[in-house]
Amino acid sequence: MSSVPPSIDHAYDPERFRRDGHAVIDMLADALAKAHARTGVVLPWHGPEAARSEWGEAPLTAGSGELVADLARFVERSTQLAHPQCMAHQVPPPLPGAVLAEAVAALVNNGMAVYEMGPAAVPIELAVIEFLCARLGYPAGAGGVLTSGGSLGNLTALLAMRQSHAGFDAWKQGTHGGPALSVITSSDSHYSVSRAISIMGWGEAGVIAAPVDEHHRLTGHAVRVALHTARNQNRRVIGIVAAAGSTATGAFDPLNELADLCDREKLWLHVDAAHGGGVALSPTHRQKLAGIERADSVVWDAHKLLMMPALVTAVLFKQERHAYEAFAQRASYLFAEAHPETHWWDLGTRTLECTKRAMAVELWTALRVHGEAWFGEVIDRQVSLTRAFAQKITASSDFELAHEPELNIICYRHRTADNAELRRRVVEDGRFYIVGTKLGEDYYLRSTIMNPLTEETDFDRLLEHLRSLC
Amino acid sequence: MSSVPPSIDHAYDPERFRRDGHAVIDMLADALAKAHARTGVVLPWHGPEAARSEWGEAPLTAGSGELVADLARFVERSTQLAHPQCMAHQVPPPLPGAVLAEAVAALVNNGMAVYEMGPAAVPIELAVIEFLCARLGYPAGAGGVLTSGGSLGNLTALLAMRQSHAGFDAWKQGTHGGPALSVITSSDSHYSVSRAISIMGWGEAGVIAAPVDEHHRLTGHAVRVALHTARNQNRRVIGIVAAAGSTATGAFDPLNELADLCDREKLWLHVDAAHGGGVALSPTHRQKLAGIERADSVVWDAHKLLMMPALVTAVLFKQERHAYEAFAQRASYLFAEAHPETHWWDLGTRTLECTKRAMAVELWTALRVHGEAWFGEVIDRQVSLTRAFAQKITASSDFELAHEPELNIICYRHRTADNAELRRRVVEDGRFYIVGTKLGEDYYLRSTIMNPLTEETDFDRLLEHLRSLC
Repeated sequence: MSSVPPSIDHAYDPERFRRDGHAVIDMLADALAKAHARTGVVLPWHGPEAARSEWGEAPLTAGSGELVADLARFVERSTQLAHPQCMAHQVPPPLPGAVLAEAVAALVNNGMAVYEMGPAAVPIELAVIEFLCARLGYPAGAGGVLTSGGSLGNLTALLAMRQSHAGFDAWKQGTHGGPALSVITSSDSHYSVSRAISIMGWGEAGVIAAPVDEHHRLTGHAVRVALHTARNQNRRVIGIVAAAGSTATGAFDPLNELADLCDREKLWLHVDAAHGGGVALSPTHRQKLAGIERADSVVWDAHKLLMMPALVTAVLFKQERHAYEAFAQRASYLFAEAHPETHWWDLGTRTLECTKRAMAVELWTALRVHGEAWFGEVIDRQVSLTRAFAQKITASSDFELAHEPELNIICYRHRTADNAELRRRVVEDGRFYIVGTKLGEDYYLRSTIMNPLTEETDFDRLLEHLRSLC
Repeated sequence: MSSVPPSIDHAYDPERFRRDGHAVIDMLADALAKAHARTGVVLPWHGPEAARSEWGEAPLTAGSGELVADLARFVERSTQLAHPQCMAHQVPPPLPGAVLAEAVAALVNNGMAVYEMGPAAVPIELAVIEFLCARLGYPAGAGGVLTSGGSLGNLTALLAMRQSHAGFDAWKQGTHGGPALSVITSSDSHYSVSRAISIMGWGEAGVIAAPVDEHHRLTGHAVRVALHTARNQNRRVIGIVAAAGSTATGAFDPLNELADLCDREKLWLHVDAAHGGGVALSPTHRQKLAGIERADSVVWDAHKLLMMPALVTAVLFKQERHAYEAFAQRASYLFAEAHPETHWWDLGTRTLECTKRAMAVELWTALRVHGEAWFGEVIDRQVSLTRAFAQKITASSDFELAHEPELNIICYRHRTADNAELRRRVVEDGRFYIVGTKLGEDYYLRSTIMNPLTEETDFDRLLEHLRSLC
């Protein structure tokens, strides 16, 4: 005779889950089909204030909601990344099978701080890490960890850099009272780099932003000039943060040139390949990453070019031991109880996160089901679509490119319109979704071509749409 | 005529997703039913080395995997949190409906750094934040953000503390060269607190661990002693980190007493309620949190007592403006393009994360479907089960308690056995799962009663099982 209250029993009832689950799957499959058919808007804009009062009024306490209907409404009112006219952020329409893997990992809910918390999840993560390291061209002895997002990934890598190159035990002693530490990065680097530096307490001067060249790349020359200035100001530069696929333009910094300089100057080389890491799986474009195998650390978001749902970020180290240096610490109730030494299988020693999602399962199954070559095909298509879009812009009389696209990010503008205003109209109309960015002082429209179901004709229709809104 | 290659078209085919999705739902429903029936082991132990070679050998590149079979194998070889004999970490068997919500959020994949990236996800998050703030008893003007895990949550709160109480612009100027900053916390505080402090560069001396009293609580007296010592050592204490549900024993620090002291000394009060925050939804146990409404910041993991799949962490501030002070920064391509001022709807300004999972949807639907009172029922059951377990231990002649359980965490040991060795045998046997911890110098067995489907008879069988392994 069970003592479990009926309301609890009912909430956990496997048959209820089965029934709701089938309904949710059908709802999602229908939504996917609708988006692929270009039906409905991409961005159901209501304005933040209106949205807040609309969603804020739903009672959270009464127990009167209906799961499938609530979720269907959520889907309908969200930005439709699966719609081929969504050409905006570096966020993909996720591979549908990976979403199923995420659901499985969520129900299993195996935290991964120690092996026994994830007896399948931990070895799967290590297999994925090993695969990613191999694809970067890292030698034996490389390693790393998966974590929640590129920003946390960059912070993790820079903590390892600090511990390795500060010249003292920064974790234990603190950086207060030591030398003024700095990194050099490009003026185009992602905001998470300066965020990580300010988190570590180095202040805004801890980031020395060297100017980019005409291709938006950080060159060895610019770094040398920055290094000279920094030293004159008594700042101790311990590393360089390069980009492999910068956020603004998708530019790839010349990694071999920067690695040479780091070798010479004994600097840590971190490559933020959150966006561009995926091209390692494309034989066509892999050479853009030439030199990345020389980086001390790399951040690579599988939730960008590898089409995983957010968040699946790899932080990879050429020497695995650095993975343990980011967080030089132990917790009695987890790590120290039985084994005093550090073990590869206790992932909590290498990540900020204690309980961690079993995010590797998504990528592991996707690789097994589709094969590595499939990812290369997707990337090649994203790049060729972007080039086709660039050609259409160049061929037009009323639009212009900011630069030839390097990968799948493209910045462009209408020659005469107020482009910020134009973008506002696009967003509020909702049939297409594009974003914008400033390059130097100039505002440009910006699209990342993430959806491999986009067709070249979608670009013709986007340009027509933009003209109609000028 | 589509130009999409067939392999890509097939991977994104909504009908393939529908077919695989139904199969995955059935597989998961069956696994749930099996676990609830106490069939099979809780922990399929193979040992980390064996597991690594087993899972490491699966080819990742060939495209020969089968999604549903791969996921079924993953489920089978994972720790079964849904099994009522799982009595281990502070990780719940997630509410099955919340797993469906996570799947929906994953397919939708709406990043949330700015409103337009999540036109439903952003207002839903804000509605959830408002609900949680209200339940803590925070006054109007409170606010916060959801983030990936309690460790990141504690770091976020402590960054806001630093910015508010350091006495200078720590974000901009850095902490290098300024005063030696510190926080006081209990010797039982979670390792993420000292981790956050070392990340910020304050070093190990940045955490002053005051001894706990006989109930494992941080008292005002202990803080005053620590404060005195710190000042003699020229360390500038700017805050106290209290626990509401400590990790080791579930103890609740006396928040009103600590808040009084913080008022008097002008210290920031952060409450790590990652575990215990949930009792705010239990009328029976809510008084354990008395005083939490006076905390400057609170971290509350919904993936603990609120039964969400990991990770859903709320970082809440009594004054919403502090939510913006943790990361005092902007990014051209996101925030600055149209609106120079900070907006409540651009969540990227308040979290380390740029792309963020729409994790609020899980809790929002769960609250709407089950109602707030349901969560209170679950917590009350967890607590009463834990008390029943404690009584059985006390009534036995061969086991003893470390302390009367405060909530749903219980530390105990066999009076004569080598308890660390005993636990090792439990783990390798796999029919039950318990963990262990050190309290002071003594090793104890430790269970967190998370599964509301556990019955009192499961404890009888656990004690018998332990005796049989002595």
